[in-house]
Amino acid sequence: MTALKTARRILLISTCALASTLAATPALADQLIENVDGIRIDEAGEIDRFTAILIDDGGRVKAVYDRNDKRPREVDYLLDGKGQVMLPGLIDAHLHVMQLGIAQLTLDLSDTNSLEEALDKIRRFAAENPARPWILGRGWNQEKWGLGRFPTAAELDSAVSDRPVWLSRVDGHAAWGNTLALEAAGVTAASADPAGGRIERLPGSRKPSGVFVDAAEALVQRVVPAPRPAERDLALLKAQELLHSMGITAAADMGTSMDDWHTFRRAGDGGRLTLRIMSYATDADTMEAIGGPRPTPWLYDDKLRMNGIKLYLDGALGSRGAWLKQPYADDPGNTGLPLMSPAQLRNIMVRAATGQFQVAVHAIGTAANAEALNAIADIADSFSGDRRWRIEHAQIVDPVDIPKFASAKVIASMQPVHQTSDRTMAEARLGPNRLDGAYAWKTIANTGAMLAFGSDAPVESPDPFAGLAAAFTRTDSDGQPFGGWRPQEAVSREQALAAFTANASYAGFGEGRFGKLVVGERADFVLVDQDPLLATPEQVRRTKVRETWVGGRRVYAADTE
Amino acid sequence: MTALKTARRILLISTCALASTLAATPALADQLIENVDGIRIDEAGEIDRFTAILIDDGGRVKAVYDRNDKRPREVDYLLDGKGQVMLPGLIDAHLHVMQLGIAQLTLDLSDTNSLEEALDKIRRFAAENPARPWILGRGWNQEKWGLGRFPTAAELDSAVSDRPVWLSRVDGHAAWGNTLALEAAGVTAASADPAGGRIERLPGSRKPSGVFVDAAEALVQRVVPAPRPAERDLALLKAQELLHSMGITAAADMGTSMDDWHTFRRAGDGGRLTLRIMSYATDADTMEAIGGPRPTPWLYDDKLRMNGIKLYLDGALGSRGAWLKQPYADDPGNTGLPLMSPAQLRNIMVRAATGQFQVAVHAIGTAANAEALNAIADIADSFSGDRRWRIEHAQIVDPVDIPKFASAKVIASMQPVHQTSDRTMAEARLGPNRLDGAYAWKTIANTGAMLAFGSDAPVESPDPFAGLAAAFTRTDSDGQPFGGWRPQEAVSREQALAAFTANASYAGFGEGRFGKLVVGERADFVLVDQDPLLATPEQVRRTKVRETWVGGRRVYAADTE
Repeated sequence: MTALKTARRILLISTCALASTLAATPALADQLIENVDGIRIDEAGEIDRFTAILIDDGGRVKAVYDRNDKRPREVDYLLDGKGQVMLPGLIDAHLHVMQLGIAQLTLDLSDTNSLEEALDKIRRFAAENPARPWILGRGWNQEKWGLGRFPTAAELDSAVSDRPVWLSRVDGHAAWGNTLALEAAGVTAASADPAGGRIERLPGSRKPSGVFVDAAEALVQRVVPAPRPAERDLALLKAQELLHSMGITAAADMGTSMDDWHTFRRAGDGGRLTLRIMSYATDADTMEAIGGPRPTPWLYDDKLRMNGIKLYLDGALGSRGAWLKQPYADDPGNTGLPLMSPAQLRNIMVRAATGQFQVAVHAIGTAANAEALNAIADIADSFSGDRRWRIEHAQIVDPVDIPKFASAKVIASMQPVHQTSDRTMAEARLGPNRLDGAYAWKTIANTGAMLAFGSDAPVESPDPFAGLAAAFTRTDSDGQPFGGWRPQEAVSREQALAAFTANASYAGFGEGRFGKLVVGERADFVLVDQDPLLATPEQVRRTKVRETWVGGRRVYAADTE
Repeated sequence: MTALKTARRILLISTCALASTLAATPALADQLIENVDGIRIDEAGEIDRFTAILIDDGGRVKAVYDRNDKRPREVDYLLDGKGQVMLPGLIDAHLHVMQLGIAQLTLDLSDTNSLEEALDKIRRFAAENPARPWILGRGWNQEKWGLGRFPTAAELDSAVSDRPVWLSRVDGHAAWGNTLALEAAGVTAASADPAGGRIERLPGSRKPSGVFVDAAEALVQRVVPAPRPAERDLALLKAQELLHSMGITAAADMGTSMDDWHTFRRAGDGGRLTLRIMSYATDADTMEAIGGPRPTPWLYDDKLRMNGIKLYLDGALGSRGAWLKQPYADDPGNTGLPLMSPAQLRNIMVRAATGQFQVAVHAIGTAANAEALNAIADIADSFSGDRRWRIEHAQIVDPVDIPKFASAKVIASMQPVHQTSDRTMAEARLGPNRLDGAYAWKTIANTGAMLAFGSDAPVESPDPFAGLAAAFTRTDSDGQPFGGWRPQEAVSREQALAAFTANASYAGFGEGRFGKLVVGERADFVLVDQDPLLATPEQVRRTKVRETWVGGRRVYAADTE
């Protein structure tokens, strides 16, 4: 490495020492981090490599150096990167911050392999959490358990009978309660199945068995106590910790409720907000109550902004709620349904755009994507300017509609791992001949539209390295299928990295503030053990995040083995 | 004045020049204001006189000087106070910020002397505000007009017939709508009077005349569009302007709704918040949604804090809603009513206190004050610490209960001008022999309890000099009654000034931040044309505020005549 410069305080610290000094992160002083294998997006949007970075006392990038560039004569702190790979902090363009955090606080049964194992884990969790009035959790799967039937309330009572228990199935389409939960909800043999849902019954009886499918889940869910503010605060910290541990420094929160927003603000007000959050409200009233006539300014040193609104135009492919132009191949009478009328969609888009708020439209199916693109094209005449219309997911797009992303300047906010999780299901739903516009990252990008990548966590893991590997291989965590699924839609490694950094920032009006590691931006970066532009896909998936920095301060350091 | 010191930039500016340079207020530099006739509350809580004040680059008081004290050798800005009286910024311990601001945006009919004059003013206001979907206003008084009856919808139609019009009577106990307002509300001859209210009818008919009394107002009020966020933002700026023009630099907002809070935050986020607001939420859910498990920190350089909750234990004396131990002298069957049960009151107080939130209980009548004091005494055992329980108004207290203010460390948050407005009404309601604990400022203070003074604006004018004069004279704006009403309850001028400054700050956890003009506090002060400790009561009432400063920045300067 290069010779060390004069520093008021020289810190030559290995990663393990960094971890132990996490609380003592220097701030408000120039820091030079030397000897890194740096990769960033430069001012021109191109991949640039560098070996050192200077951070000013405000936590912004002051300079970036190649090996032979002259370093400053004096700095306050000099850190040795030990040759590790440095990347811009990863940015997730679509996740659900509070749901992710709350999931961290509840029981996870996704690793259980039998009913007995699950009951044992539930029993232990309840014992370890005596103060919780309800035991909540998720992730059970009776298929994985080899049970051949749904579990019952009586079985759950055998684990916990002093408090209600309420557990979501792995896919979120069913939930399992104990007797106290059913009693709290007032569900009895006399209860009728709601539209779109089913109360499972005991064999030969009308007595509820304990499992509730789809819309029937709400019968119990409505009596589950909402998280208390203190739980929300803890959940946000857990979400931040998890995301930072995976290298994520910023995220778009897709569907911020009023309670979510207050949680973000409490963290910001208390100096505990370390994740940059680009917020999209659940509805127009929430958006306007918070932002007033316009989006909020960037708050807390570019950590939080109410950007606009998240709209749902259709449902999901798995449950056949996605709105298709042609019927489902595996359900010929069904095309799914739009969740808003054309007038509703346009009215709310106009309302948002009038206030300079950004609009992010969830659209999964071909008809939903066409309608979203057409609505944007209709409105774009009246609201030209820099609107950054977003379509979230854009999973199954009719190839004839794909050019409209570029022509209407619509950002395609997509989640690479969804493709690997959904591919066999998508084939079943659409049949083999209607997959040309499915998860069509490359085709969309080739039209000139911008791709921003995310995870949809907690629906999928927020790990961005899984997303990066999927994006350039079209293979899942096991490398399947060999050669990739519709590999012509893979993007380059460079495109994938930009979609998870600079583009995800731009998609949330963060450009110039974070996302590229250019001079003047906040110094948000990660140190990792693999070069995502050179390592094998398998290595990229197994990338270890050593440190995560936000605004020139270290917010995560890995434990050493 | 003393010789001017070396300054990088010497500003010798008369008040009129100051006004014209309002936008260019110096900031982020030391400012020495020389040649003032300064009055402040010192560290020991005593009145202290000074002649110069040094403000640091963060807008805090750096030093306070007597005539002969040595000044700093060099300052950035040197200003000449021209011998004017300087006081700590006045603090209103009880008002309604947004209601005050919204009242500034609507039509004020309180200066009209006839129906014709009012109709003319309404017509002009509507013409000047063509974009407003409803014409809203207040302040009409058919007695003052000499009308001998309520006005009618048809009369209002003659002024405005293209939009609904809805106007509150001066006392807020009736409102007057035009035909479009009645139609929007769906009120017809078939509409029944609601409990506690009366729809005025045309003579010899069931047809609504246009005026709605007490609870009947809600029939129309519920269809009046809520203010839009942009209107709320403007209303807050108007409230700030008005308060600063009267010398007020901080206020307790008694009953902050979620929309109010967002309005305060938007102003803070945008750098437009110049009034310090000590906020008390309308209800526990709002308080906890905002604060979470604890009050917010002080935000925006000590400009905003969610302190706790405002509770209503009873109504008002005028409408005989105040809860008395003995029946009303002028309504022998009536003692008023508590608005909460003992259990409700204690439960919500415990809930707030558990989260370290402050509780401010509205209590007007003797029974309400006794119950509030008893509830605090009951709970104070479990929640000792520094709770700063507040009773708002404390208007009519049974003399046997007065010592409980001191023993339970309850702050009496009172409004001197209410006494002058209410005295004849209070005599009627209570009779001559039950006035010993009425507006008993001096008696309460003599027990050792703290007095904090406010205005209850917009119920009364927020002018603190009217409040100061009332406090030490017990006379109204005309100096009536001669010698003061129950003058033994007048407080000293020094007590009155402390109650409108340091005590009002302490009552909202602002001590050490603002209220006294001691070193380390924010430099919040006013320059005025009268010395409130020496001038005649009449002069004090007519005090002209020349300049108002918040945090070392001028936020108001009077126009020169």
